[in-house]
Amino acid sequence: MYRLFYAPHSCSLASHIALEQTGAAYEAIKVDFGNNEQRGDDYLSINPKGRVPVLVTPDGTLTENLAILVYISQSAPEAGLTPRDDPFAFAQLLSFCTYLSSTVHVAHAHGVRGYRWADDPAAISEMKRKTPESMSECFETIETRLFRGPWVMGEDYGIADMYLFTIASWLKADGVDPNQFPRVADHRARMLSDPVVKKVIAAQ
Amino acid sequence: MYRLFYAPHSCSLASHIALEQTGAAYEAIKVDFGNNEQRGDDYLSINPKGRVPVLVTPDGTLTENLAILVYISQSAPEAGLTPRDDPFAFAQLLSFCTYLSSTVHVAHAHGVRGYRWADDPAAISEMKRKTPESMSECFETIETRLFRGPWVMGEDYGIADMYLFTIASWLKADGVDPNQFPRVADHRARMLSDPVVKKVIAAQ
Repeated sequence: MYRLFYAPHSCSLASHIALEQTGAAYEAIKVDFGNNEQRGDDYLSINPKGRVPVLVTPDGTLTENLAILVYISQSAPEAGLTPRDDPFAFAQLLSFCTYLSSTVHVAHAHGVRGYRWADDPAAISEMKRKTPESMSECFETIETRLFRGPWVMGEDYGIADMYLFTIASWLKADGVDPNQFPRVADHRARMLSDPVVKKVIAAQ
Repeated sequence: MYRLFYAPHSCSLASHIALEQTGAAYEAIKVDFGNNEQRGDDYLSINPKGRVPVLVTPDGTLTENLAILVYISQSAPEAGLTPRDDPFAFAQLLSFCTYLSSTVHVAHAHGVRGYRWADDPAAISEMKRKTPESMSECFETIETRLFRGPWVMGEDYGIADMYLFTIASWLKADGVDPNQFPRVADHRARMLSDPVVKKVIAAQ
């Protein structure tokens, strides 16, 4: 039995979908960001970084969405959510997911959590102002260069789809029209009609 | 034969060390950031993101340091630079490396490349001002919670060591005294005396 600590509208949605997709036994525990629960002593004793997702496994606790996604998929290899026995294909998947975690998610964070990198309110406002531009650039790269079709990595559905779907769901709130990116928008529509994705969104 | 595109003082040092450590046949090609070569048409045709490292392999081109490090290690499993057949140990490694790529490297980038997230020079200065504070917080987390010893992940030397060594080498320039973090500083001293690391630093 796994325990997933998640917050609605955060990147933990991807890990939640992966757990549901593999049929793993898990309990999903909501962390109330509205009440700053992630900064409370109880939660910091689980994850001192004060972030989600966290996956508590029989072997120990894991942090970082990308690591959790890879762990869930490799622990249920029959689900086929990551390439097996092909270091290049696996590295291509990691490359895409690392771009999401270290560039795209970071671009988004400047619109909502600029205090991580500046104290001056004017600087935080300036970061927020630029967020639509940097998110648009990232999604232009995804739309025209990285997305293969029909799924992110090509023929096989997997963790990259769950992760892209999650981050693309932030575009509107970031001030970006998602319809600028028709392949990403079509991917999103297909994800939204998937029974597993529907179930997880309803549960969150 | 691989081709590695790197820039001195960038995170590509880690991938360079991994190639040398595994005994892979490779050519290292310097990208001149001083002359903005990474934004030139020749380089953008290799990596449209305009970043390093890039690894050109017989199967295709890879971007993102973490993906390249995992690829190099998994393509030379006899070197033992990543855990094999143990999804939890591998996920712990990915968790550490993702923290480096999406939090620590990003904190550093605010001191040198703030223009990615703001246009206003005052905001860029404010980001730079806060960089020592955020880098110190990151290394406090590494020193007290994440670093296991004697190597980053415990008994086995691997890609996490190469990656931490690379990012820790930026501390002084970021305005942080590396000796605040004795375990990281000791790790750095051991890495600097390693013949493979010495050879790569001399070559760069």
